[in-house]
Amino acid sequence: MEYNGVIIENTYAEGFPTWVSRVIITAVTKEWAYKAAVEATGFATSTIGCPAEAGIERFVPAEETPDGRPGYAILICVGKKKLKEQLVERIAECVLTAPTTAAFNGLDAEEKLPVKLHFFGDGFESKVTVGDRECWSIPIMGGDFIIEEEYGAVKGVAGGNFLIFGENQMAALVAAEAAVDAIALVPGVITPFPGGIVSSGSKVGSKKYKFMGASTNEAFCPTIREKVEGTEVPEGVGSIYEIVIDGVDEAAVKAAMAAGVKAACKVPGVKQISAGNYGGSLGPFKFQLHELF
Amino acid sequence: MEYNGVIIENTYAEGFPTWVSRVIITAVTKEWAYKAAVEATGFATSTIGCPAEAGIERFVPAEETPDGRPGYAILICVGKKKLKEQLVERIAECVLTAPTTAAFNGLDAEEKLPVKLHFFGDGFESKVTVGDRECWSIPIMGGDFIIEEEYGAVKGVAGGNFLIFGENQMAALVAAEAAVDAIALVPGVITPFPGGIVSSGSKVGSKKYKFMGASTNEAFCPTIREKVEGTEVPEGVGSIYEIVIDGVDEAAVKAAMAAGVKAACKVPGVKQISAGNYGGSLGPFKFQLHELF
Amino acid sequence: MEYNGVIIENTYAEGFPTWVSRVIITAVTKEWAYKAAVEATGFATSTIGCPAEAGIERFVPAEETPDGRPGYAILICVGKKKLKEQLVERIAECVLTAPTTAAFNGLDAEEKLPVKLHFFGDGFESKVTVGDRECWSIPIMGGDFIIEEEYGAVKGVAGGNFLIFGENQMAALVAAEAAVDAIALVPGVITPFPGGIVSSGSKVGSKKYKFMGASTNEAFCPTIREKVEGTEVPEGVGSIYEIVIDGVDEAAVKAAMAAGVKAACKVPGVKQISAGNYGGSLGPFKFQLHELF
Amino acid sequence: MEYNGVIIENTYAEGFPTWVSRVIITAVTKEWAYKAAVEATGFATSTIGCPAEAGIERFVPAEETPDGRPGYAILICVGKKKLKEQLVERIAECVLTAPTTAAFNGLDAEEKLPVKLHFFGDGFESKVTVGDRECWSIPIMGGDFIIEEEYGAVKGVAGGNFLIFGENQMAALVAAEAAVDAIALVPGVITPFPGGIVSSGSKVGSKKYKFMGASTNEAFCPTIREKVEGTEVPEGVGSIYEIVIDGVDEAAVKAAMAAGVKAACKVPGVKQISAGNYGGSLGPFKFQLHELF
Repeated sequence: MEYNGVIIENTYAEGFPTWVSRVIITAVTKEWAYKAAVEATGFATSTIGCPAEAGIERFVPAEETPDGRPGYAILICVGKKKLKEQLVERIAECVLTAPTTAAFNGLDAEEKLPVKLHFFGDGFESKVTVGDRECWSIPIMGGDFIIEEEYGAVKGVAGGNFLIFGENQMAALVAAEAAVDAIALVPGVITPFPGGIVSSGSKVGSKKYKFMGASTNEAFCPTIREKVEGTEVPEGVGSIYEIVIDGVDEAAVKAAMAAGVKAACKVPGVKQISAGNYGGSLGPFKFQLHELF
Repeated sequence: MEYNGVIIENTYAEGFPTWVSRVIITAVTKEWAYKAAVEATGFATSTIGCPAEAGIERFVPAEETPDGRPGYAILICVGKKKLKEQLVERIAECVLTAPTTAAFNGLDAEEKLPVKLHFFGDGFESKVTVGDRECWSIPIMGGDFIIEEEYGAVKGVAGGNFLIFGENQMAALVAAEAAVDAIALVPGVITPFPGGIVSSGSKVGSKKYKFMGASTNEAFCPTIREKVEGTEVPEGVGSIYEIVIDGVDEAAVKAAMAAGVKAACKVPGVKQISAGNYGGSLGPFKFQLHELF
Repeated sequence: MEYNGVIIENTYAEGFPTWVSRVIITAVTKEWAYKAAVEATGFATSTIGCPAEAGIERFVPAEETPDGRPGYAILICVGKKKLKEQLVERIAECVLTAPTTAAFNGLDAEEKLPVKLHFFGDGFESKVTVGDRECWSIPIMGGDFIIEEEYGAVKGVAGGNFLIFGENQMAALVAAEAAVDAIALVPGVITPFPGGIVSSGSKVGSKKYKFMGASTNEAFCPTIREKVEGTEVPEGVGSIYEIVIDGVDEAAVKAAMAAGVKAACKVPGVKQISAGNYGGSLGPFKFQLHELF
Repeated sequence: MEYNGVIIENTYAEGFPTWVSRVIITAVTKEWAYKAAVEATGFATSTIGCPAEAGIERFVPAEETPDGRPGYAILICVGKKKLKEQLVERIAECVLTAPTTAAFNGLDAEEKLPVKLHFFGDGFESKVTVGDRECWSIPIMGGDFIIEEEYGAVKGVAGGNFLIFGENQMAALVAAEAAVDAIALVPGVITPFPGGIVSSGSKVGSKKYKFMGASTNEAFCPTIREKVEGTEVPEGVGSIYEIVIDGVDEAAVKAAMAAGVKAACKVPGVKQISAGNYGGSLGPFKFQLHELF
């Protein structure tokens, strides 16, 4: 099928399960909440080499936060065992340390992970109620740090994705940026890669170097199109960028894919949209591109 | 002594050794180089709980980069063994994956760390010369990723610091921001905490909770000033922010401290500047505040 | 009365009529729409010395814009005769010239102002339908510029305002920033001054220099508190910032004042909120501070 | 000739005289100086429809500003008579009103323009020395506003320019962005259009609509290439963006053109660089593209 003159391949993205927590970080201004959120979600593009996948989900206006200050919701996504550790460390090192911040649970869920940072108070901590939440108040140099103790965790979906085929690199790049902007407005998802974009989509393993767990997906590399038998790069395509999406559930990831694909197709120079899958062997979630419209 | 009406305490910051590498990340525009640099230096405030300390050192104009494109220099700081792993992972997950980027060594040093990402090319990689550098060119979906293989590593200095005592929280906060802005102009250093600022300066261990490796430094907590015997918070001080500096050598850290302290002292409502040390027991580097002027 | 421990004076802001148009600027990405909107609303703080008052009202997501691309809504506020000229010039010089943009009417109103930029096409222009709008398509170097011809204009309200009294300058400043952030979420209003904040509130005329139409409002100047008989600066107040609000109607301005005042009162170091009026002699709109809660 | 595989046409940009003043705006932080500079240089792309051409020249580090705070230098460019008025109004409405700012002269020149804003102080103003400058201190609500009284003005050059021909719109756009980034590092110049880029280059007058002073330059419009006899759009070019440069002198404009052209030629998808002139009839300055290398 076509959308806005762009070919939409009849294929699907393959997603797999992950565990997800959401932290609401508030601060005296939007800007300071943002700075903490950026630090807390850094080095978190892919669990292949990062300790977690993480990103800013959305701005949370003051009237929706427990303490009535502006905030940002972040998602942290990784296997369940590691999630607790990453939640603790990313809050401890990147939110507690950030000026004027507070940290609240952002997910109502049966499963709850404890973040016992109040011990940092060395006995000077105290219980406080903020809005409708029971929290700890920890005296620190900058003032008092307010933190909720338990964070909900849900089984979410990682690896939602689509591929943007551009006439040349800049067309694919700006389209990817437009897609990421659009996805940023969808609740419940993040695009964990730098600027939300993946430049180096990979295949599992390596044909030549057996010690590599992943390597370049040569079938989708435009600059070696002539050298790769069975290339998937159509003529006239000069660059491909991938958008990877993690979310709290299947519906959120699907909504994000729909918003992103449509936005990409509005950018001049985009030729085709595809998606990455492993033939269904890796993950239980299938997101058909043709069902996004 | 006083500077601009602000009391400068007669004390010193205590720094300790670390290993440092510098990566120059270039991209098609300043903005895309910046986005990769932000991701690559995230979750990297303190080695207490992060896998490294890292930050953006400075913008590198096109005429100073190997490929003639705009770039950012980042510093990664951690013990030597872990530095190699962090260098590899942060480049692999946060630079290789970022659109249009390239990665170059930014430190001429005897000690060199190998970053063998060219294996990702699965045999399609090739050697190329970029400016005066031997590099690898790896075909990826977005185009070709250029990367230098060896990165210099030097013994640097971590834990340079100073404390800003403000009349109230906002005075201390804006002064800390002004200090970070000023330090950003000094070559060879980073301020690894969120927005460059530490809100929750800690002491080693905990008096009450023996299982804690670090806890709040109650002597410097303004909100419990009345409760803490031996408080170091002077009357009229409502908030204290710390700036922590890592650098390639002692001179760089000292220059950064000087620039930061002077900038902070220009902000109305700043009362006093101090520094954190452990009586000289932790680190071999001493930065006397009075010698900064 | 008090709110969050801050004194709310029993006074009112005095607003006066203005004419308002809204332009929706779209572009290939959020960022390029933003850059055009910033240029188009610059040099537009006060009609005392600027040709208009203008500002960014809000981000408009793709699904709400006529062409399905991301956009920003801007408001232009000035007397009716000048509004037409300012609308034409700000679109012609700052939107038509900006890469990838389009301009659409953002106000359904009986009164319509013509913006006949299609003559720029020198005969190469053509009529096109975009979403449900009849527009002109003008060939330009970058591509085609799409523009709607008629823009609604309504009688709005200028000069909504409140004053933030801070313990010191940085407390007042950060509170003003927090207030502007909060007002940015309220539809139908702008805060036209730099960063949304007025540092130099004025009185009509001048006691000493008869040729001046406006001069400093000495009764509200903290640094000369001791020298001014009848000063309105309470003891312990070191700085005062004013927020000025223009809007499409009285309700929008009132909602913005409420959001801004509440946000400012959350910032530590804010002592009092007041508002500026001329005893009711200047404008027909009265916004009582006590009615905001 | 070719540069980096891009055709450089053998033509020249035609510049014409303008008058230029430079204002150094400082503030408590880099960010607040920036916000004032943005407002003060808005609605200032072209004197065809704006009251002046203006832009941010560069960041000025604290050690180079009179008051030792971070700042931005802006240039205001227009005919001499109007320059005085624009200098006064842009400082009065956009800098005096901005929080924590000060304004200093940034041009040593024989010609000096008076900016008598101290009358705003209504008798409460006083003379102060800041660094080596005689200034006025004006009490305002936020604190004291420091301003120098006289601003140098020099005969500069307007209309320096070049054209970027891209394979498609996104290639031309990102190349234009890269060019603007590079020019931003050259002292003495500004790129006054939105984001530094002109999307709608014009010709003098109009063939069809005699009342128009300027209209689209159809010979350079890619979307009507087939309809325009004598089109200047080569086959395979889908979009053209222009960069316009104003500067304090010929050398600065030439340096900026060189930096910009080279940066644009690094971006994939750029095919050709040209420049705009009127056959030498309009301006006395000729900038030959081939002399930039």
